[in-house]
Amino acid sequence: MSDPFVVVGGDAAGLSAASKCKREDPDREVIVYEKSDWISYAHCGMPYYIKGEVDSIASMLSLSPTEVSERGIDLHRHHEVTGVDPREQTVTVETPDGTVKQSYGDLLIATGARAVTAPIEGADLDDVFTIHHMHSAAALRALLTPPEKADESVLDADYVDLDAITPYFDREPPETVAMVGGGYVGVEMVEAFREWDLETHLYQRPSRPAPAFGEAVGDEIAAYVDDAGVDLHLNTEGEAIAGEDSVERVVADDGTVAVDLAVVGIGIRPNTELVMDTGVEFGESGAVRIDEYGQTAVDGVYAAGDCAEKTHAVTGESDWVPLGLTANRAGRAIGQTVAGDPTPVGEIAGTAVLKAFELECGRVGIIDHDRAEAAGFDPVSETITAGSRSGYYPGNAETTVTLTADSESGRLLGGTIAGEDRAAIRIDTLATALHKGTTVDELERFDLAYAPPFSPVWDPILVAAKVLNGSLEA
Amino acid sequence: MSDPFVVVGGDAAGLSAASKCKREDPDREVIVYEKSDWISYAHCGMPYYIKGEVDSIASMLSLSPTEVSERGIDLHRHHEVTGVDPREQTVTVETPDGTVKQSYGDLLIATGARAVTAPIEGADLDDVFTIHHMHSAAALRALLTPPEKADESVLDADYVDLDAITPYFDREPPETVAMVGGGYVGVEMVEAFREWDLETHLYQRPSRPAPAFGEAVGDEIAAYVDDAGVDLHLNTEGEAIAGEDSVERVVADDGTVAVDLAVVGIGIRPNTELVMDTGVEFGESGAVRIDEYGQTAVDGVYAAGDCAEKTHAVTGESDWVPLGLTANRAGRAIGQTVAGDPTPVGEIAGTAVLKAFELECGRVGIIDHDRAEAAGFDPVSETITAGSRSGYYPGNAETTVTLTADSESGRLLGGTIAGEDRAAIRIDTLATALHKGTTVDELERFDLAYAPPFSPVWDPILVAAKVLNGSLEA
Repeated sequence: MSDPFVVVGGDAAGLSAASKCKREDPDREVIVYEKSDWISYAHCGMPYYIKGEVDSIASMLSLSPTEVSERGIDLHRHHEVTGVDPREQTVTVETPDGTVKQSYGDLLIATGARAVTAPIEGADLDDVFTIHHMHSAAALRALLTPPEKADESVLDADYVDLDAITPYFDREPPETVAMVGGGYVGVEMVEAFREWDLETHLYQRPSRPAPAFGEAVGDEIAAYVDDAGVDLHLNTEGEAIAGEDSVERVVADDGTVAVDLAVVGIGIRPNTELVMDTGVEFGESGAVRIDEYGQTAVDGVYAAGDCAEKTHAVTGESDWVPLGLTANRAGRAIGQTVAGDPTPVGEIAGTAVLKAFELECGRVGIIDHDRAEAAGFDPVSETITAGSRSGYYPGNAETTVTLTADSESGRLLGGTIAGEDRAAIRIDTLATALHKGTTVDELERFDLAYAPPFSPVWDPILVAAKVLNGSLEA
Repeated sequence: MSDPFVVVGGDAAGLSAASKCKREDPDREVIVYEKSDWISYAHCGMPYYIKGEVDSIASMLSLSPTEVSERGIDLHRHHEVTGVDPREQTVTVETPDGTVKQSYGDLLIATGARAVTAPIEGADLDDVFTIHHMHSAAALRALLTPPEKADESVLDADYVDLDAITPYFDREPPETVAMVGGGYVGVEMVEAFREWDLETHLYQRPSRPAPAFGEAVGDEIAAYVDDAGVDLHLNTEGEAIAGEDSVERVVADDGTVAVDLAVVGIGIRPNTELVMDTGVEFGESGAVRIDEYGQTAVDGVYAAGDCAEKTHAVTGESDWVPLGLTANRAGRAIGQTVAGDPTPVGEIAGTAVLKAFELECGRVGIIDHDRAEAAGFDPVSETITAGSRSGYYPGNAETTVTLTADSESGRLLGGTIAGEDRAAIRIDTLATALHKGTTVDELERFDLAYAPPFSPVWDPILVAAKVLNGSLEA
């Protein structure tokens, strides 16, 4: 009999699932198909590799193909799954040697997401990149490095196509770059470009960078980006990239800027084409809907990672927040489930942290009032600024906290934080509070840490809770 | 009619209560008696002032007498309350001009705690200090400063008795110091002494420094203390300080060491003599028992701060954890309550953070198995070490987390953490989890932050929860 656990996609969710299943049930056949060369790489590390803060691609790979094989997993790279037949319980696989059918007992769709460039015109010109694959990261790193400093040791992963990448080392680095899109990736990338001393333009349609972090944090990020010498084009419409063969300029409603490099980071979309007509259901985001255990609407077909939604801890509704931890965790849980031990994939709280030059930023939960209202809440927010340490202790830094709560129940709905001193990691306190349905009144009374080097008597989070609680009671 | 709110003690709890009461009920007469010169000062800042990291005593004072008066509070320094008569609702006050009686409507006992030196012999010799008052801090700072670097600007608070303190500047600094007691204060003080290049001996009866932080953290603290060149005398019994007039040596069961400075930091005791025979009840710690609103067993008599117990969030039992935040919070709540708006003082989770040289340490909840068993739990603990950031990101530091849970319910009971990179503040995540009665199974699935500069995919807290959850299920 043949009931292998078949996994489509060899990155965080897919390999977590395969590894966990094999560990729990060593006799089960586990097959992973990955259409590219690359497996198990750290998307989030790319900006720091491009910046030059990380010098080794290999260090950003969690698992090598050999290690995967040593776990007893049957890994096939350059194998693209092109069809799923849930009735027959088979997948169609394009292999280097032709098309094959493979039966499955359980199937995991872990196809991830892809960077989109539409509606930006000209994204197909040379020297226009997206940041969603190590290949782009390697090319950008080589292109930004002046020829006299070229160092192939930074391309230290077997997967790197040296013939394609090393020519970038020989070119003179670009002098002016346009980063189109000011979300997480845009903010992280302009830091990398400034490190290489490029004249840097950041185009952002909304009125602030990183809108997911809300107004208070967005304004602070804008100030740091500006201080770093980045030319910030906010509220900009109609960006188009233009040039003969390679990028020469960016045209937007605020004028034209001559550039010799452009990066487009305006968003990602879930890769769901494979299961489009299989009975699998999709959420409003276009990502796959799953149940508590990661199973789709089709029996025996699971989905995890950037192609799948998850239940939001605050709203209880299905939501799409494609990030690394929840992908790993969902994969692991599904691996355990298909090995016979049903394990929930967990909820998302929308926790995210972002380094914007020296500013540490965090966000969690529902902070947008429209979204909160759509979920049935009556949101109230307060923003405070407080010290990160005792005022007299060296290194004390202003920390801005915004908390949002439901005015009727007093329940905390979300929050953001920004500051230079240990600000981002404080978001975990709020994430924990959200998972447990904490009210602002309770939060105000939590016994949080105090010692002059680490926190003032009233931690910024407590100050914010106190102020918001006052507003709720008023 | 005369129903003033009378407060005994002008530090964190007392002045928080007075200020809040006056703000909520401006017509209420609020009287504060403080027996010393000093009000509202930051105990926790003293080691850093002595070390020379903080140069201004005034910066460690939250409120000046003038500011207190401007709030409409009737503050009397050098006034010692020596008696309470709950039937008459009066207190007896020794003033500089003689003894008076003052009636009260509500009374707050915020008398704090004092450093103990018993059973250490010789603590009354010259150049033997305790660290529980700014006067000692000022003297030590002056004594440690070489005469050629004497700078009176570091004594910038009106309260400093310059006649008593400035002579310390003229003396050659001590060369060898014995720190007797290796709790929080001992660990913080040896850092200060090493900064001034003293040969430093730390005497500790238990087998580790800072036992409240448990074995794993205690061992790490010991390693940092040792690396800093401190001579660590663990498991040491029978320390005695000896000398003619001033300290000359410390004698313990591991031998005699010649020293010219000694500091005793072996603990504090609540100041409760004032209410000993008033009907007020006391806990096992000797501190005052209070109810949810800070009221003692005697109607209209409240207690807050280091002289009072509080309910522990994990055990639900009354416990004594004398620290700054809970003192401030309880005072503030009592001020609000006596102003007519009953407000709970909040619970303690036993949260504490400590800097041991470059090591950041945190602890929360019940981590001692004997204590956990006494509270009716069946404790299981696991200790893990994980990175503070992605392994490839600069600044990643090993972080040790110990979690303790009840094996039957899976409920988290407590935890500790240590590491050089943003470790201490992560304890707030665990404090929040404890206040909300979180199980380890839940904690393992929380959506905590991930970004290479701030946390690996699996934060050390999640790794610990995963491992402990595995043990609980096994």
